[in-house]
Amino acid sequence: MRQGLFITLEGVDGVGKTTQALILKEYFEQLGYEVLHTFEPGGTKLGNSIRQILLNPQHEELHSMTEILLYASDRAQHVYEVILPALNAKKIVICDRYVDSSIAYQGYGLGLEIRAIEAVNQWATGGLIPDRTIYLDADPALSLQKTEGDRIEQRTLEYYARVRKGFLTIAQREPERFKVISADGTREAVADRIIKALGGIYL
Amino acid sequence: MRQGLFITLEGVDGVGKTTQALILKEYFEQLGYEVLHTFEPGGTKLGNSIRQILLNPQHEELHSMTEILLYASDRAQHVYEVILPALNAKKIVICDRYVDSSIAYQGYGLGLEIRAIEAVNQWATGGLIPDRTIYLDADPALSLQKTEGDRIEQRTLEYYARVRKGFLTIAQREPERFKVISADGTREAVADRIIKALGGIYL
Repeated sequence: MRQGLFITLEGVDGVGKTTQALILKEYFEQLGYEVLHTFEPGGTKLGNSIRQILLNPQHEELHSMTEILLYASDRAQHVYEVILPALNAKKIVICDRYVDSSIAYQGYGLGLEIRAIEAVNQWATGGLIPDRTIYLDADPALSLQKTEGDRIEQRTLEYYARVRKGFLTIAQREPERFKVISADGTREAVADRIIKALGGIYL
Repeated sequence: MRQGLFITLEGVDGVGKTTQALILKEYFEQLGYEVLHTFEPGGTKLGNSIRQILLNPQHEELHSMTEILLYASDRAQHVYEVILPALNAKKIVICDRYVDSSIAYQGYGLGLEIRAIEAVNQWATGGLIPDRTIYLDADPALSLQKTEGDRIEQRTLEYYARVRKGFLTIAQREPERFKVISADGTREAVADRIIKALGGIYL
């Protein structure tokens, strides 16, 4: 049934995912494709309620398994309400963050069991895997400059270094799907690299 | 590490779970045990936020997999924040609803994939299974009289019949753990049956 194209963007907050998603959206639209730009967590009305729970600094007692399951809840709703209908309508879906974020942040960053994250997300998404993922790679020190004071942002440089290592490990395991793109340089230079990395998977 | 006793109560809303839990609590306390009475969903502060999402009638677009994962999120938090610490402190934990509710309501009642519910809950609870479960069995027609107008209560008699069948199926599969008790008669009569069904598992 599925006939669209599913592209995800990964990378720490502030690295330029939204900017690049919008450039990519325009690029595909100019080629005549219908494009949906969406994001996680909170890409649905219900998911936004879940996001409020996750980002609430007062919920400091949030257990790691609860955190994994809440992200997966948000993701399930997003997949079934937004992503799959768009793919079934032959659209190109560009999504800021997806399962790789859970593996990199909760798994590598916080040290939660990666096997649990993978299993829960496999159920949550019905096994939906992106056709291609672009990871915008940057110095972990940059991530700390972007903190906004919410629960998730109250983390250290060592944490962001582990998250980056997680993304790079995924890249080693799945080189066909998961492309590492340097986030250095102008937005146009980064966009060019992304288009190049996507080469050959157009509809 | 675990040295307490974990008892869960199951049955439709209004069947008398809370009343029986309080009678049972007093019974064990008079025997000298420390007892914790708790409940799902919403047995923690964070879980209560999740419960608000689940019970909001405006969330009619809630996907079934999201529902499974949200109940599991609430349960994970409850297990790690409340149930396990009490069991590790050698307490008797009496909990209104647990994994069996998800299997009976979402699995048998709504027709969601039981294997998914079991797998997700296995991860959520770290495999914590009650030492004994008491199912208060009643005519499904009674359940309809207890409706409160929230999203979950807007269901039909056929639905409640399927839920009951689910609980009875679990009883057939796990006769040692899962005891079916008639909810008919006075609260004292029901309490006597429960005490009898628990026979032999005292600490």
